[in-house]
Amino acid sequence: MNDETRKTDRIKAVYELDCSMSQAGNVAKDICYEQTVEVDEALVTDEFINDEIVGKIECLESLTDGRHRVTISYNQDITCFNMSGLFNVLFGNISLKQGILLTSVEFPESFTSHFKGPRFGLAGIRDLLGVRNRPLLSAPLKPMGKSPSTLASLCYELACGGIDIIKDDHGLSDQCFCSFEERVKECVEAIKKAYAATGKRTLYFPCILGEYENTEKRIRWAGKNGADGVLLPPVIFGFDFLRYISSNDEIGMPVMAHPSLSGGFFSDRKHGIRKDVMLGTLMRLSGADMVVYPNFSGRFPFSMEDCVLINDSLKKPFNNIKPSFPVPAGGTNLENIPLLKKTYGKDVVFLVGSSLFLRSHDIRDNVRYFLSLVED
Amino acid sequence: MNDETRKTDRIKAVYELDCSMSQAGNVAKDICYEQTVEVDEALVTDEFINDEIVGKIECLESLTDGRHRVTISYNQDITCFNMSGLFNVLFGNISLKQGILLTSVEFPESFTSHFKGPRFGLAGIRDLLGVRNRPLLSAPLKPMGKSPSTLASLCYELACGGIDIIKDDHGLSDQCFCSFEERVKECVEAIKKAYAATGKRTLYFPCILGEYENTEKRIRWAGKNGADGVLLPPVIFGFDFLRYISSNDEIGMPVMAHPSLSGGFFSDRKHGIRKDVMLGTLMRLSGADMVVYPNFSGRFPFSMEDCVLINDSLKKPFNNIKPSFPVPAGGTNLENIPLLKKTYGKDVVFLVGSSLFLRSHDIRDNVRYFLSLVED
Repeated sequence: MNDETRKTDRIKAVYELDCSMSQAGNVAKDICYEQTVEVDEALVTDEFINDEIVGKIECLESLTDGRHRVTISYNQDITCFNMSGLFNVLFGNISLKQGILLTSVEFPESFTSHFKGPRFGLAGIRDLLGVRNRPLLSAPLKPMGKSPSTLASLCYELACGGIDIIKDDHGLSDQCFCSFEERVKECVEAIKKAYAATGKRTLYFPCILGEYENTEKRIRWAGKNGADGVLLPPVIFGFDFLRYISSNDEIGMPVMAHPSLSGGFFSDRKHGIRKDVMLGTLMRLSGADMVVYPNFSGRFPFSMEDCVLINDSLKKPFNNIKPSFPVPAGGTNLENIPLLKKTYGKDVVFLVGSSLFLRSHDIRDNVRYFLSLVED
Repeated sequence: MNDETRKTDRIKAVYELDCSMSQAGNVAKDICYEQTVEVDEALVTDEFINDEIVGKIECLESLTDGRHRVTISYNQDITCFNMSGLFNVLFGNISLKQGILLTSVEFPESFTSHFKGPRFGLAGIRDLLGVRNRPLLSAPLKPMGKSPSTLASLCYELACGGIDIIKDDHGLSDQCFCSFEERVKECVEAIKKAYAATGKRTLYFPCILGEYENTEKRIRWAGKNGADGVLLPPVIFGFDFLRYISSNDEIGMPVMAHPSLSGGFFSDRKHGIRKDVMLGTLMRLSGADMVVYPNFSGRFPFSMEDCVLINDSLKKPFNNIKPSFPVPAGGTNLENIPLLKKTYGKDVVFLVGSSLFLRSHDIRDNVRYFLSLVED
């Protein structure tokens, strides 16, 4: 293998370092060792290890006196081509340090070819719905504490109003007051009934949250019992679980990813995994067909710039990996939808809860109004 | 159920809030809704939901003008008694906000009784080794890039020197240059050979890191092929995977937890999950028999106070949950061991890598020296 080939076969991670100019070189070098061999340089005496295992500084540049950008490349074999290995290499041990922010990752085709990415992706979700030229509309089943039949009634009204996608609230699991199987059965029934009445397709995504030993079973059960996809939180379950579920041909359902717990990685603006890498690139690589993230102007402190970057990460060309649908959510007000449409364009799923339910007691009319806001 | 009973059946989470005094009440109330019903207060009209589902502010006190401490209690049924549900309730959506730090959690016995906690725990690990009155000694197999047979030779030397526990480096997975099965087989063989020569028991913990579909299989395979336990990273796999593995009677092996990727949750000192909650309380509840964490005076920015808090969380009385062994690591220098012993006492596992290997080429002698530092 010549040097040129080897270079193209490496993963390139870009980190921003918060340190003085005199420290930047050492911090960069430290990352190269910490994320791979984890030993003192003096112990790396083997040529193979030095050349092939230790991370390599590809480029180091100063942004300001106290801020520097380093590109470090890693041998992709170290990751074993799964998300657990990848997370470990990109940010495992250095997560425990300070002032290191992962701002982007560039993957060679020879790496991403090991991943299927989203099974349906943005275009596939549109195909399932037969909706081409407008943003998709989504609503959550909430609040937690309602019985399966009450949630199913809400489901029916939302579907009759013409909503595209209904998802369980992400806290709904298999609680004693709302069992998973009962909820899914009743909601699937409600969707079918609405479809029979209106002829408009609505997809239902139950939430998968619960004990490890039943998680995959529950997903398979949902698929067999008429759910159209599943909602799951990759940071809670591990991103490789998302990759496994999304790429499993027997399961074969679309997956909507929820950002629960992900905020730990980007609340510190100087250390962590930047929002668009975490909720964009890595969710998409793992196979999320749709990614829920906090919208600007909602109840979470995400800026428009954050959201545009996430949106872009989910849709821009990315080797063999299909685009995912961005699902901005979290306190979106219906009145902001026209503005949001300008920001995001048509390839977006608007997920609205409280504002949709509070407009009036007539849920169907509320959905029709929601729809009127996105139609040209 | 009277009010008194209900109160004892709730999980109490303590958060520190970074906000003005006038905002503190609203931030606290927001957490109560965000972590449970996720809707506007106006939509919570049901008495059951208001009384039983929405989180409750138990106590709100100001620490300074800009810092406040709130105790919020949650109905434990919401969690469904697994770690995924628990993480979601404690910090799921609010992870996406700012200025909220989870500093402790108090669990009623009726909650923890659903968890087995560490199968072996601190005392059980001592029983396996027959070592009672001194800190345990551990060393990693590294650097990544070495072949299984080279790592097995290191294993043999460490065991002959009298080390208690050998663990794979946490980046070792099933790389093309060091397959999992070959590594485990050769290292188990090396440990047996050393035991035959010395009669001193050494435990070997291979690292479990890899694709979801093979993770449990690999753990079972390791157990059947003579590994004494496993090392796994709960933040990468999800904490409920740790709970499942540790509590599974068929697997029945001790688990050492690695903190890879956990730093995302506590690099921001004003927002996240405090180190001792993440690496102490939640690791222990999930069933980690030993917990690796960055030692102060090493190469990670952990203070002595951080470490003492983690250490304490792992060992203090905690309902039915056994104490776990603290494993301070990450650049510990042999010369600091006597001081560290004073800080931690005897119930600690010292995990030392580079400093142990760099002392001399005679690994056995290095281990004997390491041992001399902890013996009275």
